[in-house]
Amino acid sequence: MAGGQDSRSSAAAPAVTSKVKQEETFPIASRLKEGRALTLDVWSVFNAANLPPDCINLGQGYMNFPPPAWAREGAEQALRSVAGNHYAPPKGTVRLRKAIKEFYGTTFGKELDPETEIVVTSGANEGQYAVWAAFLEPGDEVIIFEPFFDQYLPSIVFNGGKPVYVPLHPSTETAPGVKIGKKTWNIDFDELRRAITPRTKMIVLNTPHNPVGKMFTRAELEQVAQLAEEHDLIVMSDEVYERLVFDGREYTRFASLPGMWDRTVTVGSAGKLFAATGWRVGWVVGPPALIKPTLAATTRIVFCSNSLGQEAAATGLEQARERGFFEQQLAEYEERRAVLIDAFEKLGLEYAWPEGSYFILLDISRVRWPEDYHFPEMLDGRGRDFKAAWFIANEVGVSSIPVSEFYCEEHVDIGQNYARFAFCKDLDTLRRAGERLQNLRNFLH
Amino acid sequence: MAGGQDSRSSAAAPAVTSKVKQEETFPIASRLKEGRALTLDVWSVFNAANLPPDCINLGQGYMNFPPPAWAREGAEQALRSVAGNHYAPPKGTVRLRKAIKEFYGTTFGKELDPETEIVVTSGANEGQYAVWAAFLEPGDEVIIFEPFFDQYLPSIVFNGGKPVYVPLHPSTETAPGVKIGKKTWNIDFDELRRAITPRTKMIVLNTPHNPVGKMFTRAELEQVAQLAEEHDLIVMSDEVYERLVFDGREYTRFASLPGMWDRTVTVGSAGKLFAATGWRVGWVVGPPALIKPTLAATTRIVFCSNSLGQEAAATGLEQARERGFFEQQLAEYEERRAVLIDAFEKLGLEYAWPEGSYFILLDISRVRWPEDYHFPEMLDGRGRDFKAAWFIANEVGVSSIPVSEFYCEEHVDIGQNYARFAFCKDLDTLRRAGERLQNLRNFLH
Repeated sequence: MAGGQDSRSSAAAPAVTSKVKQEETFPIASRLKEGRALTLDVWSVFNAANLPPDCINLGQGYMNFPPPAWAREGAEQALRSVAGNHYAPPKGTVRLRKAIKEFYGTTFGKELDPETEIVVTSGANEGQYAVWAAFLEPGDEVIIFEPFFDQYLPSIVFNGGKPVYVPLHPSTETAPGVKIGKKTWNIDFDELRRAITPRTKMIVLNTPHNPVGKMFTRAELEQVAQLAEEHDLIVMSDEVYERLVFDGREYTRFASLPGMWDRTVTVGSAGKLFAATGWRVGWVVGPPALIKPTLAATTRIVFCSNSLGQEAAATGLEQARERGFFEQQLAEYEERRAVLIDAFEKLGLEYAWPEGSYFILLDISRVRWPEDYHFPEMLDGRGRDFKAAWFIANEVGVSSIPVSEFYCEEHVDIGQNYARFAFCKDLDTLRRAGERLQNLRNFLH
Repeated sequence: MAGGQDSRSSAAAPAVTSKVKQEETFPIASRLKEGRALTLDVWSVFNAANLPPDCINLGQGYMNFPPPAWAREGAEQALRSVAGNHYAPPKGTVRLRKAIKEFYGTTFGKELDPETEIVVTSGANEGQYAVWAAFLEPGDEVIIFEPFFDQYLPSIVFNGGKPVYVPLHPSTETAPGVKIGKKTWNIDFDELRRAITPRTKMIVLNTPHNPVGKMFTRAELEQVAQLAEEHDLIVMSDEVYERLVFDGREYTRFASLPGMWDRTVTVGSAGKLFAATGWRVGWVVGPPALIKPTLAATTRIVFCSNSLGQEAAATGLEQARERGFFEQQLAEYEERRAVLIDAFEKLGLEYAWPEGSYFILLDISRVRWPEDYHFPEMLDGRGRDFKAAWFIANEVGVSSIPVSEFYCEEHVDIGQNYARFAFCKDLDTLRRAGERLQNLRNFLH
């Protein structure tokens, strides 16, 4: 171990058995193991440091372009002030909460009360963590759909909950409104119903969905709503990709369905809305009965969120409508999406049609590599998709994220047929990636 | 409840008893109650909104002056870049970790390894939360000294731990090097020893100490070290006020004591170092065996910390030495401290000599208010100090924080003799506060 200083232990306490000496470490909390937090996560494996220097990164979902300059101006102004450099209220600045209220308007059938129905969090991630900290008792079950955003699992487990997995299934029907006949992924509602037990406390929705790119239809959400009502469940609706809904689809907020406001926390993200993942500003909105405990939890976890990001986010929300920002951004993302889709079509590979979000799930089961191909040790024991994604990154020069990471151990077999490609990159980068991907043709069977 | 929409519940599931209907809310997690998170906290009671508009706020510990402009420039540059607006690595930016390494130098008897011995967190608060998430199993005991920084309690409880309280005692001896004969507060080491059980996992130190203003001496820290070694404990040394150590005292880092590096996490804060509490950038340093699990925990709690604050903090750390910033800042704080001390001396009230930090603990047991004085309902059931601080804020026009909040219920009697005054305010504000406080003379007995 580090340190290299004389220890007093031999003199001070010869009779006490030292855990340090025996294990060369202190025993860590079991939640870290149960929550997969100690496994080398997919982001660390498919990290730029491990990949060829010229590899195009379509793995991690961050943008290689900046947020709009007029929104950044909000943070610059904050920097020049006194208050903008100091603690914000734990529930968020008055200005940002007012901007969030205006952003949602009457979409929930009412206007939000910024004092009791909105809490700003240190990214959507921490907001979700706070909800679980506020409501989960040991053993409470939380239903999540596979493939799931990987942070859900440890966040639930850290707070004593038990994730219960319900896989989405590639549909036999064509996605509505898609000309080239690509399939969507669906919930099997019998399966969902069977997953509900007396210990079920919550269902997590993510629409548009990461990594599938699915946007849940009103009809699907209504069926979830019926189950939530029937079994008195809290619903967490993770809607961070809400302004990236393509092909003119109508977006339905879960909490806007009849009766659902009272039992739903809706999660939003300034990072996703404004291409600013490093601002770490998200929020949770819902009825006071759900927001008050969430505020109590987040206040203890982070105390408050950073003021600079909050001022930038407030500026963004205040001006977005007048500037037509979200419409313009959506058009740009549709163009970006088209580049990747085109590349996959040319390759003749199956993929999930991205109805929303900035991800495309590519079926990589046809990718083959030489039998003697060398993979690093850190891929041992991981799904086939880890190898495929590694091979593609190293031989074709485009990185992606293997999808078995987004499945529980039991269901890894489903996930390992897919890799997730992010298109939150500029057109030139995506075009170069699309060209490189054509070389995959040599490795398909 | 909010919403005002028709509920489907009556039609959909008549047979199921609704928890929503019965309790008008969802059952919250018991950790929120055990962790005091649902009690109206002292910060909300003594919030500007509840106090007279012209009240001078010496309650909350945030500065009414900005961070140095040259450090803020780091965040401005980040705003103008692409990467500065996007995710930082979960362990913190390479630049900030390098700056932290340089900041500590060889104070631990070695240089820090930025890859394995430093993790940047979303404020020191979240860093401490992550340490507890990483190491506490249900029922593990954590020793904290009273009065304690109030966030320790819920953070420990949320992570399944059990706080064990050891009060500091006003000393019968004069604080070393203090001319006017003021007392310091001390640990009773027999009491500390008796508090240790087989379930004890950690001791939390805070030096300089909030709210007492005490800086633990090397001799005291050595006695803690001996107990930590003997009972194989992890020590969390919260050193966020480390650059505010007055009267030329020599500052001792706990982890620099022989043998202590291996069992200590040291907590730092850019907000405290650079008068930038809203940046939400802190860090935890220690041996890899303690940092790796802490990184795993923080990665799941917040994923990463905001990039703008990290760039500002890095700039601050990189340039502070050359600019003589900490020395200059310390001199300014000594001047601020002198203004408040002068006011308390003139009043003839007892107070804890602030050896460090930016707080003074004032003995308010002699303050008396008219028998028919009206206090708001939210003070019901709180310690006498809540009333005294309320009375002083409303009648004298200076707000402070009652100290019983920093004691467990059993020991509220000790805490309710004190109020905490912060001097992290500009001189003019402090002088006006000092003048106003002289009116307290009319209410002393």
